[in-house]
Amino acid sequence: MKALVTGGAGFIGTHLVRNLLERGLEVVVVDNFTLGKQENVDCFKDNENYKFYNINIEETEKFCEQLKNENIDIVYHLAANSDIQKGGKNPSVDYNDTFMTTYTVLEYMRRENIKNLFFSSTSAIYGDKKELLTEVTGDLHPISYYGGAKYASEGFISSYSFMNDFNTVIFRFPNVIGPNLTHGVIFDFVKKLQKNPNELEILGDGTQTKPYLYVLDLVDAIVKFTLDIEMKKGVEIYNAGVETATSVTTIADIVCEELGYENVEYKYTGGNVGWKGDVPKFQYDLTKIHNAGWQAHHTSDESVRETAKYIKEHY
Amino acid sequence: MKALVTGGAGFIGTHLVRNLLERGLEVVVVDNFTLGKQENVDCFKDNENYKFYNINIEETEKFCEQLKNENIDIVYHLAANSDIQKGGKNPSVDYNDTFMTTYTVLEYMRRENIKNLFFSSTSAIYGDKKELLTEVTGDLHPISYYGGAKYASEGFISSYSFMNDFNTVIFRFPNVIGPNLTHGVIFDFVKKLQKNPNELEILGDGTQTKPYLYVLDLVDAIVKFTLDIEMKKGVEIYNAGVETATSVTTIADIVCEELGYENVEYKYTGGNVGWKGDVPKFQYDLTKIHNAGWQAHHTSDESVRETAKYIKEHY
Repeated sequence: MKALVTGGAGFIGTHLVRNLLERGLEVVVVDNFTLGKQENVDCFKDNENYKFYNINIEETEKFCEQLKNENIDIVYHLAANSDIQKGGKNPSVDYNDTFMTTYTVLEYMRRENIKNLFFSSTSAIYGDKKELLTEVTGDLHPISYYGGAKYASEGFISSYSFMNDFNTVIFRFPNVIGPNLTHGVIFDFVKKLQKNPNELEILGDGTQTKPYLYVLDLVDAIVKFTLDIEMKKGVEIYNAGVETATSVTTIADIVCEELGYENVEYKYTGGNVGWKGDVPKFQYDLTKIHNAGWQAHHTSDESVRETAKYIKEHY
Repeated sequence: MKALVTGGAGFIGTHLVRNLLERGLEVVVVDNFTLGKQENVDCFKDNENYKFYNINIEETEKFCEQLKNENIDIVYHLAANSDIQKGGKNPSVDYNDTFMTTYTVLEYMRRENIKNLFFSSTSAIYGDKKELLTEVTGDLHPISYYGGAKYASEGFISSYSFMNDFNTVIFRFPNVIGPNLTHGVIFDFVKKLQKNPNELEILGDGTQTKPYLYVLDLVDAIVKFTLDIEMKKGVEIYNAGVETATSVTTIADIVCEELGYENVEYKYTGGNVGWKGDVPKFQYDLTKIHNAGWQAHHTSDESVRETAKYIKEHY
C-alpha cells in the first residue's frame, strides 16, 4: 500500500510518516519546506519505502505532472499554512498554502483515479461560536483567512468526493502540539522567557482557553481511522480533540515551571483575543470519535507540559 | 453611489443593472460573455451612468489593476458558472468561474477598501438534504462542483468580511428563471419540442421538484436588502426563495400548454436525478426573509409559465 503525505516534512506530517513507514507502507512525501524542515525527514532518507518530492503543491499542473503514475492508494493531505496569525497579515498565504494545495490534491486524485483521502481540517472553520461544537453544527462563519481557506477546502472536498466516489475522512484538528512544533503560544513563551526570564508578555488577557491535543495521540487516530477502520464512500467528518482545555495563563505557568523560572511578571496586552481572527474559546463535543473507538491519552495540560519540556531541550 | 456588478451582462445581472440604473446609481459592469451576452447590455450603452469592462474576473491581478480607483461603494458579485450540469463534466469550470471570481472580488475589495458586498450563493451548498433548509442548517455536503465552489466562496467571504469589516449580504438562490434565461430545464424543453412536437425526453423520472423563483422578484429582494435596508457589519445570509415548487413533469405540462403542443409523449430517462450532482428535491424555510419584509410575487408555477411564454416569443 502506498501513501502520499503532503506536508510530510512538517510538524504533524513527520510523525505520521514515521508511523506509516513503521507499518510497512510505501510513503511518498511532498513538501516545499515553508514550515516543514529538511532535518525532520533526514531520518527517513535511507528507508527504501520512502520517497521525497520538493514541490509547491499550489502549482496544480506541475504537481500533477511530477507525481503522475506514482500509483498512490491513499492521500494524507496535511500541507497548509498552519500559522493563523501569519496568514492574517496577507490572505494570499492561506489562499495558496491552505486552499490551493487542497484543490491540487483533489485534481490529482481525480486525474489519477485515487479513491482514498484523509484531510486535516480545523476548529477554525466553526468561527467564534459559544456552544459545544459538533460535526453537524451549522451557521459557521470562519473569522480567519486560515479558517476560511479550510472551510473552502471542505466544500471542494465534498463535491469532489461525491462526483468521483472518494472515500474521505476529515478530522477537524484543535491546537495540536508536541515534538517538532514550529510555532504557536508555547513556542513564543519559551523564546520570550529565554530572552527575559523576569517578564512575560501575554497576548490578550490570558483567559483564552482551548484544547491542546498531543500530536502522537492525533497521529494514532489518523492511522486508526484510515487503515484500521475501513474507509467508506462519501465524507466522514470527526472532531478530533481532547476533552480538557488550557488557558493561556495556565500555559504560561506550566512553561515557567518547566523552564525553572520563578516570579515571572506577566504583562497582558489586554482584550479577549490574541490577535484579529483568533477564536478565544471553544470546545468540541467528542461523542462521535469516542464512540468510534478513539480518545486522546494526554490531557490538554499534559500535552502543554510535554511540549514545554521538548522545546526546552531542543531550542 | 457607485455599484460594481460582476456578471452584469448575464441573466440575473442584466435585470439588476437595469434596476440600479433606474434608481440613479452609477453602475460598472464586468463580464466576459461566457454566459452573459452583449445584446443584454446594449440597451445601457448610452446611459452616462453605465460603464462596461470585458475582463476574465478569475485573473485576480489583471482585474484589480484594471478596476483600480473606480471608487466603488458596493459590489454585487453575480459572476459564476450557473450551469451546474456543464460544470459536472470539468471541475475547472466552477473552480475558475464560480470560486476564483469570488476570490478576485474579495481581494479587490480588500485592496480598494470597499466595504459593501452582495453575494449570490445557492441552494446547492446544502447538498442533498431531506429537511426544510434554514440559513443555520448544518452538516452541509455539496454534491456538485458548482455547490462546492459556492460553499468555498462563502467560506472566503466569511473570513474576508470579518478581517476587513465588510458589510455582507448573501442570498442563497434556488432555481431562478424568467426573461433572458440562458439554459436549464424550461429552455431545454422548449428547444426539444421545437425540434419534435410529438415527443419530449425528460431527464430522470420527472418527480424532481424544486422552487423556481422569478428573476424580477429576486432582483427586488436584492435591491431591498442592499439599498433600502441598511447593510450591517458581518455576514447576513438569507434563503431567497418561493414557498411553492414545481416538478419536472409539471414544467413539461406547462411548457407544452404555452407552446400549444398537445398529446406530447413524455420519454423519461429514469432515475430520481437529472444528472450526477443534481439535487432532486429541496425546499427552503423562508421565515427569515419573510420576517425581514420580502416575499416573492410569483408562485413557482407562475414563474415557469411566464418563462415558457418568454422563451416561446424570443427563440
